[in-house]
Amino acid sequence: MTKALYAGSFDPITFGHIDVIKRASRVFDKVYVAISINTHKHALFTDDQRADFARQALENLDNVEVLVSEELTVKLARSLGATVLVRGVRGGSDLDSEMSIAGLNEKMDDSIQTIFIPTAANYRDLSSSMIKEIAKFHGNIDKFVTVPVVKALTEKYRS
Amino acid sequence: MTKALYAGSFDPITFGHIDVIKRASRVFDKVYVAISINTHKHALFTDDQRADFARQALENLDNVEVLVSEELTVKLARSLGATVLVRGVRGGSDLDSEMSIAGLNEKMDDSIQTIFIPTAANYRDLSSSMIKEIAKFHGNIDKFVTVPVVKALTEKYRS
Amino acid sequence: MTKALYAGSFDPITFGHIDVIKRASRVFDKVYVAISINTHKHALFTDDQRADFARQALENLDNVEVLVSEELTVKLARSLGATVLVRGVRGGSDLDSEMSIAGLNEKMDDSIQTIFIPTAANYRDLSSSMIKEIAKFHGNIDKFVTVPVVKALTEKYRS
Amino acid sequence: MTKALYAGSFDPITFGHIDVIKRASRVFDKVYVAISINTHKHALFTDDQRADFARQALENLDNVEVLVSEELTVKLARSLGATVLVRGVRGGSDLDSEMSIAGLNEKMDDSIQTIFIPTAANYRDLSSSMIKEIAKFHGNIDKFVTVPVVKALTEKYRS
Amino acid sequence: MTKALYAGSFDPITFGHIDVIKRASRVFDKVYVAISINTHKHALFTDDQRADFARQALENLDNVEVLVSEELTVKLARSLGATVLVRGVRGGSDLDSEMSIAGLNEKMDDSIQTIFIPTAANYRDLSSSMIKEIAKFHGNIDKFVTVPVVKALTEKYRS
Amino acid sequence: MTKALYAGSFDPITFGHIDVIKRASRVFDKVYVAISINTHKHALFTDDQRADFARQALENLDNVEVLVSEELTVKLARSLGATVLVRGVRGGSDLDSEMSIAGLNEKMDDSIQTIFIPTAANYRDLSSSMIKEIAKFHGNIDKFVTVPVVKALTEKYRS
Repeated sequence: MTKALYAGSFDPITFGHIDVIKRASRVFDKVYVAISINTHKHALFTDDQRADFARQALENLDNVEVLVSEELTVKLARSLGATVLVRGVRGGSDLDSEMSIAGLNEKMDDSIQTIFIPTAANYRDLSSSMIKEIAKFHGNIDKFVTVPVVKALTEKYRS
Repeated sequence: MTKALYAGSFDPITFGHIDVIKRASRVFDKVYVAISINTHKHALFTDDQRADFARQALENLDNVEVLVSEELTVKLARSLGATVLVRGVRGGSDLDSEMSIAGLNEKMDDSIQTIFIPTAANYRDLSSSMIKEIAKFHGNIDKFVTVPVVKALTEKYRS
Repeated sequence: MTKALYAGSFDPITFGHIDVIKRASRVFDKVYVAISINTHKHALFTDDQRADFARQALENLDNVEVLVSEELTVKLARSLGATVLVRGVRGGSDLDSEMSIAGLNEKMDDSIQTIFIPTAANYRDLSSSMIKEIAKFHGNIDKFVTVPVVKALTEKYRS
Repeated sequence: MTKALYAGSFDPITFGHIDVIKRASRVFDKVYVAISINTHKHALFTDDQRADFARQALENLDNVEVLVSEELTVKLARSLGATVLVRGVRGGSDLDSEMSIAGLNEKMDDSIQTIFIPTAANYRDLSSSMIKEIAKFHGNIDKFVTVPVVKALTEKYRS
Repeated sequence: MTKALYAGSFDPITFGHIDVIKRASRVFDKVYVAISINTHKHALFTDDQRADFARQALENLDNVEVLVSEELTVKLARSLGATVLVRGVRGGSDLDSEMSIAGLNEKMDDSIQTIFIPTAANYRDLSSSMIKEIAKFHGNIDKFVTVPVVKALTEKYRS
Repeated sequence: MTKALYAGSFDPITFGHIDVIKRASRVFDKVYVAISINTHKHALFTDDQRADFARQALENLDNVEVLVSEELTVKLARSLGATVLVRGVRGGSDLDSEMSIAGLNEKMDDSIQTIFIPTAANYRDLSSSMIKEIAKFHGNIDKFVTVPVVKALTEKYRS
């Protein structure tokens, strides 16, 4: 039984993240989605809000579990019994930084393997930061995030 | 008659931007240059200053018009009757992020087409942020920006 | 009136090429699609076949004209009165080589401007060479090329 | 039980390939390594030789099986019951082409998921073609390929 | 006699930087390592601390000298009599931004030549910012930085 | 005294190559330019022709010497007493493959250091293969190669 961990800030979760998680849930027996506290100090949503958005979006995936963590990713993986770290990749410039993170993680704990899952073509342009930027200018974000996230972002940026 | 929109922070406008605008002005009937308010909160110059620098630099181009906007790019394009978004590209890593922005814009309004114009080799290394960095250290920026911008930057960073 | 030229080997034309041409046809008054003879010596289809595939695929686009040429692209553009060269781009590594070609073309004739059009996310993975490879192994290519091309490729690789 | 397929020309297998296969063998229950016939017409070694090199290199990995195939990768995966395609990635330019292949494979059979495994830093520079080039000039290839491959390449390029 | 300058924030120096400096010290007669004050405002360590870490790490390299500077890099090079600027590169996306900096430096002083030295595969994933991030989460950083830096980072992030 | 080696096929030498060699000749005491025999089997010009073009182009650089070699690059460097391998880089995708070659060379002989020199912006788009392609279609190549090469290419492709 192979357990995988997908850690990130998910501030907020997008259709791109959800696509990667669905793919991971078909490949691995168990997928943990960890909302990382504190990595990016200026998170728009609290970690509890981010976890709620993720849980609502993923509730149909039986082998996916959302949690909040302030541990280093490799330590969290080990404590969860996860031997695989999952990362979504959207293109070459993404990969260069992801390769570095994977390399550092391996130097810290070489029993844990990073794998990359290509994001679906249709979601390859999405990023949480771009979507927040669009929301800030009151653009339509229905195609990028779930309904609760649309509502929350619209509320945040009501001027 | 095809109208194009080139939106950005232009903080400040560089010879690289001017090169792209000149090229666009030869390809399209009308080119709007929009100084975006607020996207990057910590703009060095006010939006009026940025618009002035742009207008001075572009006054010889009859079909170019500079304006200040706080609207989302696709909405601004639509209200101006522009069906083309112009972006300059300097290389592969530029393109990856530009492709994402173009993809998101298309998902918001697919009647507007993004096109990329390659910056002239001679200006491919320029960016507003690098030039501000050089000015901060009192380096010579004559080859990168117009005379009014050289003066304004020198003034800003007089220590 | 701005005329654009999109030159390539189109061996054979794919849904990715067609997408770029459609986008160009909305931006420019006239779009010439030139089947280049001889650049890649080992073309699978004759230049007439390649032109036929393109004409069938593009017959609904009134301002698009397909032609066969053995001229250098910038010379062909000049003789057609086209001031714009169109190229589709699919990502960063694509762009690096396209930037070089654009730079060389500009050094040969700086009255002609290259512009890049991003391929739709859904067609960003397509290339004529990959599709021929798939057809060779009798894979399903319905989602990548038009019906006449599917037939011709299937015929070619019938073992 | 998740079965994975790693298909390639392996002409010949390198320490980079072996590293990726070892990593895959820890993540998945079963890993098939398929020597593809014919994709690259000018293979240096016959498919039987390439399979032998791979089998010798991988004989200690109990859940790895080497086979020779002339089928399209997605069809082979399906007939083997493999739901995962494994590809090694060495950097950004690698990824761009691998993303395209993954995208095309998904369009042909969306029940099969491609995942990318980063090659160990120490082997990131290796490629079969570079190693053949070095062997051709009688360079030392001990650090790049197994002993039987060293011998076979030395023999091939004895002048 | 060729003198080279390697300027950066070194906040703090990593095994990757040290590797590049060692390589440069074998190629050039003299290598200056300049701790740049102020470029990145939010340095974790003071410039004196950063210089100390560098001096301790490099004390065995006779032709290497560490200094602190708030001058523009090309001006510093000129005042030191250095005709070469050294930069480490780890991959393609690194290079694109380094090429721009090199291009701007050349426009400011074309008597000074930038050269790039590839970081050893084993250190290619390291960056000061990633290491600080790991230290913040109390991860093991022994393989990335020298003992004094490990101690200082551990002290900084003791919670 | 540091000797550097710049090896390549130079089929034919371009203004881009010449620019890199000039830069190297200012940084190093001696620069060997080696025309590699045989790496790319289908060279357009013989190795003697390629050496002649290089010698004519470089005759004003006193510390540059052109030679023809069929040895592996690291072996040639060692036999010449060169401790540095020079490579020109034009951008990110160039670098990825150059990093691999550098890495393999280091594994074969770690006493020899590869360094990269950025090509001048003005020549960044040039490549021997593109120039041959242009010459084949009777395009103007005056801005890309020396007069003797222009003549030779024109002669080759006279139809």
